[in-house]
Amino acid sequence: MLKRYLPILTWLPHYNRRLCGADLLAGIIVTIMVIPQSLAYAILAGLPAVVGLYASILPLLAYTLLGTSSTLAVGPVAIIALMTGAALAGVATPGSPEYLQAALVLSLLSGGMLTLMGLMRMGFFTNFLSHPVIAGFLSASGILIAASQAAHLLGIEASGYTVAELGLSLAGNLAGTHWPTLAIGAGSLAFLVAVRRQGKPALVALSVPDGLAALLAKAGPVLAVVVTTLLTWQLDLASKGVAVVGDIPRGLPPLTLPGFDAPLWRTLLVPALLISVVGFVESVSMGQMLAAKRRQRISPNQELIGLGGANLAAAFSAGMPVTGGLSRTVINFEAGAQTPMAGFFAALGIGLVTLALTPLLHHLPIATLAATITVAILTLVDIPMIRRTWRYSKSDFSAMAATILLTLVEGVEVGIVAGVLLSIGLFLYRTSRPHSALVGRIPGTEHFRNIERHDTETASHVALLRIDESLYFANARYLEDTVYALVASRPELEHVVLICSAVNLIDASALESLDAINARLKDSGVTLHLAEIKGPVMDQLKNSDFLDDITGRVFLSTYAAWSELKRN
Amino acid sequence: MLKRYLPILTWLPHYNRRLCGADLLAGIIVTIMVIPQSLAYAILAGLPAVVGLYASILPLLAYTLLGTSSTLAVGPVAIIALMTGAALAGVATPGSPEYLQAALVLSLLSGGMLTLMGLMRMGFFTNFLSHPVIAGFLSASGILIAASQAAHLLGIEASGYTVAELGLSLAGNLAGTHWPTLAIGAGSLAFLVAVRRQGKPALVALSVPDGLAALLAKAGPVLAVVVTTLLTWQLDLASKGVAVVGDIPRGLPPLTLPGFDAPLWRTLLVPALLISVVGFVESVSMGQMLAAKRRQRISPNQELIGLGGANLAAAFSAGMPVTGGLSRTVINFEAGAQTPMAGFFAALGIGLVTLALTPLLHHLPIATLAATITVAILTLVDIPMIRRTWRYSKSDFSAMAATILLTLVEGVEVGIVAGVLLSIGLFLYRTSRPHSALVGRIPGTEHFRNIERHDTETASHVALLRIDESLYFANARYLEDTVYALVASRPELEHVVLICSAVNLIDASALESLDAINARLKDSGVTLHLAEIKGPVMDQLKNSDFLDDITGRVFLSTYAAWSELKRN
Repeated sequence: MLKRYLPILTWLPHYNRRLCGADLLAGIIVTIMVIPQSLAYAILAGLPAVVGLYASILPLLAYTLLGTSSTLAVGPVAIIALMTGAALAGVATPGSPEYLQAALVLSLLSGGMLTLMGLMRMGFFTNFLSHPVIAGFLSASGILIAASQAAHLLGIEASGYTVAELGLSLAGNLAGTHWPTLAIGAGSLAFLVAVRRQGKPALVALSVPDGLAALLAKAGPVLAVVVTTLLTWQLDLASKGVAVVGDIPRGLPPLTLPGFDAPLWRTLLVPALLISVVGFVESVSMGQMLAAKRRQRISPNQELIGLGGANLAAAFSAGMPVTGGLSRTVINFEAGAQTPMAGFFAALGIGLVTLALTPLLHHLPIATLAATITVAILTLVDIPMIRRTWRYSKSDFSAMAATILLTLVEGVEVGIVAGVLLSIGLFLYRTSRPHSALVGRIPGTEHFRNIERHDTETASHVALLRIDESLYFANARYLEDTVYALVASRPELEHVVLICSAVNLIDASALESLDAINARLKDSGVTLHLAEIKGPVMDQLKNSDFLDDITGRVFLSTYAAWSELKRN
Repeated sequence: MLKRYLPILTWLPHYNRRLCGADLLAGIIVTIMVIPQSLAYAILAGLPAVVGLYASILPLLAYTLLGTSSTLAVGPVAIIALMTGAALAGVATPGSPEYLQAALVLSLLSGGMLTLMGLMRMGFFTNFLSHPVIAGFLSASGILIAASQAAHLLGIEASGYTVAELGLSLAGNLAGTHWPTLAIGAGSLAFLVAVRRQGKPALVALSVPDGLAALLAKAGPVLAVVVTTLLTWQLDLASKGVAVVGDIPRGLPPLTLPGFDAPLWRTLLVPALLISVVGFVESVSMGQMLAAKRRQRISPNQELIGLGGANLAAAFSAGMPVTGGLSRTVINFEAGAQTPMAGFFAALGIGLVTLALTPLLHHLPIATLAATITVAILTLVDIPMIRRTWRYSKSDFSAMAATILLTLVEGVEVGIVAGVLLSIGLFLYRTSRPHSALVGRIPGTEHFRNIERHDTETASHVALLRIDESLYFANARYLEDTVYALVASRPELEHVVLICSAVNLIDASALESLDAINARLKDSGVTLHLAEIKGPVMDQLKNSDFLDDITGRVFLSTYAAWSELKRN
């Protein structure tokens, strides 16, 4: 029991020097790699840069205790930072103490919700985010984030969480472009793109081993940070107007207490839920993918608890909402992390940096951070997936397109909610007009197929109607209409057989419709039969009077119905 | 085209004296019968009694032009009056001009929505109200209405739209019970119950023809109204504290213009939508039932337009939201109405009464009206339906129980919304954990059945897995888990065949899961096959790369798969 909720108890007893060595190395690498992005995502959320560091210390320790993935690296991530900024913009001014406080409340609510969902084993809940909706949401968010970073690259001001807001403020301030900032930003961007595209092959060509080459290629951002920081420091560019990270308070994260303020909590409830769900989906799908690569398994419900604990830890240590991050997890994985202990070592490392080395970050240009975010985030814009979805299903595509459009135009919250509702609505709409087919016998066999697609044997006094959907409230009336139309169009009809091989459920509304169909066919002198009822459905029908009232019979197979009725 | 939107053009050209005679008689009978209930429902909604009359004039004319049911009688009805009162209580004080104005706005919004839904052919929308939810909602509303009428029967004050509010104010004022009012109320109630139970058989025993007896038994309320009005007038009970209808302004309904007031409109938007949907469902299900009795058909989308027109007419003639009423429609049907012209005659009749005869209603006791409502409304409490649902499906029952409970405790709006969301949620939850079964061959046949329910022939290197649900985003991951668990538990497995006879849809998310399953099984040396893919699903799969990537084959039938694979 304790082991279920504290997975560390399962792996810590078997911990040994070999694992420790691997985890320690991964921890050191992650420490170095994730510092720039941690700072950048805090700024993206409108928070001081140091919050990004704080959110990479205690939350990692919490996840080490509670998480089930051996490679997931928890911390601030781009999408969640964007959603955090959008949520907080509605309740306070960036930079104000209320804004910081609201970030803590958001972490607390999100942590509480995730933990609760985990304890109630509600991991399945996230299944209602369909893949096209997630892909659309991530693509649109990537564009929004890139637009917000463009301002930092140009050295101008821009704010907003929709394309209209961002576009207007970018266009309005474009004349104020700060050329030295742009030089640093554009230079970093070009360098990072080159490293991402050519880095690994170039290193491999220099006989660097494959794994190391992949890892070194990921160090591009670190190199860009080091070079531009040195440059800015030496040329004293900060005094010439290049925005830099500036003074970061030295020391471990302070203990914070998110205060209770009913209206604020109420306002942040929905954003916190959305952040929780999106963060969990991003984290768990990556965790599952990497676990599969190593033939391991993760437990989604325990992952909810792990991420919940991480966010609660963030709430009490001056942090911001966190989740398993795409890039930091990949780094962790490729650096050879073996257990969640790698996260513990990374937390130690980032703690040490926060304690002692923040002055080194003073001259780090914001434009460099913007370049690292932009390069990382544009991979979220998944054009091939959009094209594939368009080709496969117009219905799925329409949910995706609506999600993209609404996320861009109305912001992340409206976008994701609309996407979920639309995909549920489309599914219900599709199932509310079920496909049905009149079938006939393939001569000489016991098989029955759609009479419009195959040459079949039929009889004018018998209609074999196969229903291709579960029967429930949304399609009960449609079924009635279908049967009545069939009977009205064929006056010579004596028997209607409903073939239920694809009916996995008959709910109470559909049962009433079957009752009504039975009564109405009886009035018209037509007998109603059923065939191929599945076991669970039959068990349930036995709890009603329908099987006593039905005018015809219940046949085990369509062939049995056909053999019996064609003779009459 | 014009005929589609103005159904009167279809039937008026064939109108003749015989039809006119029948409709005229029905119109006169409806006029007499519905006056008490029209007054009562206006009072139930917190409006002056005369509004009930106004709402029974122009709206009927509008429906005569636009409606497709030959028997539906439109006007104020109990449930809609309750919902109207609950909606208006939130925005104004009963009796104030703002309250009257808000009632007009509610009619206007509801009329606009219904018309729009009709023009957009969104009649299917109402299918999302499942039968158990409707039955639960009507039962709970019946109880609320009866509780609100109890105050009128006792001659005390009580207000509120939840059991708690009503119960508290009833209990608080019980000491003030006005005995003469209670005498009239209880007397009327006893008389009406007796007439309803024994009226028709008693009349038939007196050799009254069957149809006439049914109609006369429905005249109980009219008799109660006449007798108690005379009594109250003769004994001058009004001056002794018995509440009466009082002065009703004489004259035709005034022309009214619902004013535009953005916050008010916004507040009333959701109530108007709920009133529209509930009113439409009540009206159209009754219309369909009665149309079926006469082998006629009604068009749900045109009915939306008809009811929309009726509500718009109410908005411009000092009315209140209306719909097809249960009791007035049954009276109209039994009185022999043949076309919507009967509604026209009833409108004329009620117009005449409003113009000239309202002084006769002055001494009509409110307690008598309360008794007529109570008797009519308690038939909505459908105990057998509740019991039947409990027996048939615990899932449907839980949606019903939640609807009843929330309607009673939180009011009509919360109740109906929660019911709809819960029934959709339960359906999604059920389909998100699809039933699947390993099947084996029934020896000597081409049939395959669940290996746990039947004696079957199987092979340890082949798993035939039948999926009993459409594959979509909500169950895509569940499918992956099912297959992975199967493969993990049977190391000797070489082939997995997914039997898709019950799969009516594979959406983009499920396609990705199939891709993932295919890749992962390939890594484990297991081949994935499909069997019995339906035509429409196969057509869609051809728009993806899946059929090229799949490691195994697509078999037409399970038998074909079995014959091929067992040999290996």
